[in-house]
Amino acid sequence: MSHSTTRRNVLRGTVATAALAATTAARTEAAHAVPTGGGKGPAIGILLYDGYSLLDPTGPAEVLSRLPDATVTMIAERRGAVRTDTGDVAVVAERSISEVDRLDVLLVPGGGNRGTIGAMNNEALLSWIRHVHRHSRWTTSVCTGSIILAAAGLLDGRQATTYWASAEYLRSTFDVTYLPQRYVRSGKIITAAGVSAGVDMALYLASLIAGEDTAKAIQLAVEYDPQPPFDSGDAAQASAQVKEHALRLLAESQV
Amino acid sequence: MSHSTTRRNVLRGTVATAALAATTAARTEAAHAVPTGGGKGPAIGILLYDGYSLLDPTGPAEVLSRLPDATVTMIAERRGAVRTDTGDVAVVAERSISEVDRLDVLLVPGGGNRGTIGAMNNEALLSWIRHVHRHSRWTTSVCTGSIILAAAGLLDGRQATTYWASAEYLRSTFDVTYLPQRYVRSGKIITAAGVSAGVDMALYLASLIAGEDTAKAIQLAVEYDPQPPFDSGDAAQASAQVKEHALRLLAESQV
Repeated sequence: MSHSTTRRNVLRGTVATAALAATTAARTEAAHAVPTGGGKGPAIGILLYDGYSLLDPTGPAEVLSRLPDATVTMIAERRGAVRTDTGDVAVVAERSISEVDRLDVLLVPGGGNRGTIGAMNNEALLSWIRHVHRHSRWTTSVCTGSIILAAAGLLDGRQATTYWASAEYLRSTFDVTYLPQRYVRSGKIITAAGVSAGVDMALYLASLIAGEDTAKAIQLAVEYDPQPPFDSGDAAQASAQVKEHALRLLAESQV
Repeated sequence: MSHSTTRRNVLRGTVATAALAATTAARTEAAHAVPTGGGKGPAIGILLYDGYSLLDPTGPAEVLSRLPDATVTMIAERRGAVRTDTGDVAVVAERSISEVDRLDVLLVPGGGNRGTIGAMNNEALLSWIRHVHRHSRWTTSVCTGSIILAAAGLLDGRQATTYWASAEYLRSTFDVTYLPQRYVRSGKIITAAGVSAGVDMALYLASLIAGEDTAKAIQLAVEYDPQPPFDSGDAAQASAQVKEHALRLLAESQV
């Protein structure tokens, strides 16, 4: 081959290989330990359930996994593959809820109607969320995940955000003040708006956990300099027609 | 419970349930068929390999899965769970490369040093990429995925982008003109910059496949109205210190 593929040169200046060996070994071990919050870095747990939306857990996981010594663990009612709202993709839950007692950070993603309602009506999940929340440093959600937190009773009397199309449901069903913001902090609870807002929230959370310098470095590490080709992501600016189109695409893509 | 959880009201105006029943049944079937490009909508295949970065495949998958009648299939050398660069998370490859002959869209994600180099040196993967590319409508990459496309010989004489820290490697190793853009189209090949740039690229690709109105509706469907808390995602604006910090966080988070 004409191209050089030494470990060193694909990412410029990335590694002092020797110095990394110990770190890497420690990470490998940490990555497979049950998170208890007793490790060196933050134990981050993300709750999966049938019918979540793929970017909700994976965007924040990408960001938060870059925090120094962090572990990110996908958790579900049972171990194994958990399928998204479209039915196309599955992420592996490495731990069941019965195996995880403590977390520094709990993140509850959102999903389609079926997934969100399924989680809201699953008392085992709600009970586990309440239990982990009691000792968490941060309890967080993305998209309709805030509705699941509300169903668990965690948002009573609080300000929160959610997916734009679910705001009216959140406000009218629970004792919650909806704020149309990208993310909302209320004490140790942080809720994010829809799907992609989890990435913005995760950077904010990273700054709370490890400081602004680290959060800014993580933003560069994931090259998050957003330049969408269109400017149609804000429901407050969208026409009724585009909203209907968006909701139709969502509904039709879900199983 | 005090909250109503009928299927209809979590997402405002989402469903005319009866009308959806047929669509849903068709989707369920389509989601589990081997993609051949012969279906009603685009067959989108994403290549996973040990050590990819989580957001690279999952950001575009979230966007592209909302295209009408699309199927998104995770593909790897062998079926089963494929672990990310941090070792924390695994996504399931539903199909092996030997099972997939044709795709409308091929997407190759990036990874850490270990993952990228592993893929570059895996002749079975490169050969499959070349084979699928021959008949694809679009061949795409995120982050260092463009280096894998280059190793397969697909970028010879072309313009492309890649992860900011890998630009020099791409330019000096292959016959490629590097452009520091969020995404670069060269014929039917579209390369995206690092990690999160895959979301921007996927929206652009959605517009090429289904038109701007649909792409804009998808942007609203995933509420992609980015508002990161900091403005540090552009390597061209970053100090040497922040760059080093970012690369250190990446290296230390990887197994």
